[in-house]
Amino acid sequence: MSILVVGSVAFDSIETPKGKAVKCLGGAATHFALAASYFTQVRVIAVVGEDFGREQEAVFLNRGIDIAGIEHAPGKSFHWTGSYSGAMNEATTLGTDLNVFAEFAPKIPDAYRDSEYLFLANIDPVLQARVRAEMPKVKLVCGDTMNYWIADHRKPLNAVLRELDVLLINDGEARMLANGEPNMVLAAVKVLAQGPKAVVIKHGEYGATAFFSDAMFGGEPVAPFRAPALPILEVVDPTGAGDSFAGGFYGYIASQPKLTPAVFRRALFYGGVMGSFAVERFGTARLENVTREQIEARLKMFIELSHLDGAEVLPGEEQA
Amino acid sequence: MSILVVGSVAFDSIETPKGKAVKCLGGAATHFALAASYFTQVRVIAVVGEDFGREQEAVFLNRGIDIAGIEHAPGKSFHWTGSYSGAMNEATTLGTDLNVFAEFAPKIPDAYRDSEYLFLANIDPVLQARVRAEMPKVKLVCGDTMNYWIADHRKPLNAVLRELDVLLINDGEARMLANGEPNMVLAAVKVLAQGPKAVVIKHGEYGATAFFSDAMFGGEPVAPFRAPALPILEVVDPTGAGDSFAGGFYGYIASQPKLTPAVFRRALFYGGVMGSFAVERFGTARLENVTREQIEARLKMFIELSHLDGAEVLPGEEQA
Repeated sequence: MSILVVGSVAFDSIETPKGKAVKCLGGAATHFALAASYFTQVRVIAVVGEDFGREQEAVFLNRGIDIAGIEHAPGKSFHWTGSYSGAMNEATTLGTDLNVFAEFAPKIPDAYRDSEYLFLANIDPVLQARVRAEMPKVKLVCGDTMNYWIADHRKPLNAVLRELDVLLINDGEARMLANGEPNMVLAAVKVLAQGPKAVVIKHGEYGATAFFSDAMFGGEPVAPFRAPALPILEVVDPTGAGDSFAGGFYGYIASQPKLTPAVFRRALFYGGVMGSFAVERFGTARLENVTREQIEARLKMFIELSHLDGAEVLPGEEQA
Repeated sequence: MSILVVGSVAFDSIETPKGKAVKCLGGAATHFALAASYFTQVRVIAVVGEDFGREQEAVFLNRGIDIAGIEHAPGKSFHWTGSYSGAMNEATTLGTDLNVFAEFAPKIPDAYRDSEYLFLANIDPVLQARVRAEMPKVKLVCGDTMNYWIADHRKPLNAVLRELDVLLINDGEARMLANGEPNMVLAAVKVLAQGPKAVVIKHGEYGATAFFSDAMFGGEPVAPFRAPALPILEVVDPTGAGDSFAGGFYGYIASQPKLTPAVFRRALFYGGVMGSFAVERFGTARLENVTREQIEARLKMFIELSHLDGAEVLPGEEQA
C-alpha cells in the first residue's frame, strides 16, 4: 500500500562529538521516506531548490521512492545547521535557512491521489490541514509536530489534531499539548481528547509508549504499549532519528492488510529498529544501505532486549 | 533462600501533589524488605530509636520479616522530610535528622550468618564494606548507593564496588560513576570495570536496563536487557520506589534455585511490579497489603505492555 508523505527535503550541516558533516541530505520527509521504503511504496511531496540535483534524487530513486511530487523551485533548498553535545539528546539549532521552503505550497500529483496512507511530517499545520483535506479517502492519517507549532500556532494545529488517527510526539511536546500536565498517562489522555485516536510518545533512548482511545480499534479498549530503544554504543548523528522511527513504524503498518493492536505494537518495534540504524552515520548514509535481513536481525535484538524467556502474549489473549 | 538486608529503617514526612503524610514508616531497608517478603525470607539489620514501637514492628512481622537484627537505641529514629512536585521524578529534601542512625554500627546476629543473599542498601560505604566482609560465604551480593557517596566518599565506595555482584543505580548515578560519560552503554562499561558483574540502571518512569560483564554468568557473554515501568495514572508518593524495585528484583532472584540470564530478566520485571505498587500510597501502606495474585496479575500487565504478540525468546535461543 502506498504512503504519501508531505514534509521537508533539505540539507543539514551537523556537528556532533563524533565529527561533522556539511550539507548532507536531510529533512523529515527524506528520513521518513527512506525508512518506510524498506516496507512499502512511498511517495514524497516537498520542495527543493537548484542545489538539489541528480545525486540527491538518486538517494530516493535507489530505494524505489516516487519523487514526482518533489517540486523544483528557483533558489536554494532548506538548509538546517545544528550541533549536538553530551548525550546528544537535544540539538542546538545554529541556523535555519528556509530558502524555497518558506513559500512551500504542497501540490498533490494526480498519480498520488490513490495513496491509502498519509503522513504529515513536521511542517506548518496550515499546510498539513490543506493536504489532509485534499486526501479525503485515505485509510489512515498519521502526523508529527513540534514545540514551535504547539506554542504559537495552536489554532491551526488543533484543526490538524482533530483529523489525525495517530500523532507522534516526544515527551516534552506531549506535556506542552496537555497544558503542562507532568504525568505521562494523564498527558496522553488529554492529547487523545484533542482528536488523535492514538498517540505515540517518544522517549529518546528509552523507547516510546503508545496510548489509544477506544475509537482507534473500533470501540475495543486497548492497553498502552511500550517499545524499547536499543542501547547504542556509538551514536554518530541523532538527526532524523524521530523521522526514521516514524518511517519504520508507518511503513510496517502500510505493509499489513489490517491495522490490529498486534500490528500497531510490532510497528513500534520496527520504528525503533529504523531509528537505531539512522543514528549510526551522518545524514542518510546508513538508511540508504540497510538490508531487509539486517532489519529482521535487529528486530530480533529488540525482542531479546525486552522479552522474557518463554513469555508471550498470544493473539487475542491480551484483553483477557 | 534468606536475604540479609542492611540499611535504614526510618520515619518519612512527605508532601506530594497528592497530599501529605507525617512520620510514616520508611527507610530503604523497610521498603526493600516488604517488597522482597512476597518472594522469600528476609532478615533486617538496622537501628531505630524509642519512637519505633509495636505498631512499626507489626508491619515487618505481619509479612514474616525477621527483625532480630533491628537494634533499639536511646533517642529518635532517622527522620527524613521531603517533598515532590510536578512529575515527582525527584525529591527535594527538606530535612535529614539522622538521630540514632548517625552512630549506626551494623551488628550481625548469629542466626543471620547463614543468609545466602546479601543486600547492601544505600548507607555509608564504610558500613557496607564491613557487613560484606563479615559475610564471606554469601552466594550473591547486591548493592545500592547514591550521588552523595559517589561524589565525596569515592575511596570506600570503590572498595564496595569491587565486592559487588550486582549494582543498582539510576541514570545520573551511572554517569557520575563513569566520570560524566553521557552514553548509557559506555557508562555501563565503565561502571562494570569498577567491579560489579552486573549493573542495573534505573530510568524512573521509563524502566531499567541491565548490563552484564562476562563474569556474571560464568564467562558467557549476555546481551543487555530492558524492563519497562508501568505508565501509572496516579502516583501518590514515589518515596521508596527504587528500594521496592530492588526488593522485588532481589527477592525473586533469591526464590529461584539458580541465577540464570532468564531469572535475572524476570527479576527485573518483578522489580518494576513491586515499584509500581509502592507508589500507589504514602509510605508502606500499599506494600503491606499486596497479594501474590495481584503481583502475578501485574506481571502479566508488564508483559502485555512490552511483549509482541506471539514473539518469545525461547530458553537457550537468546544467544543464537
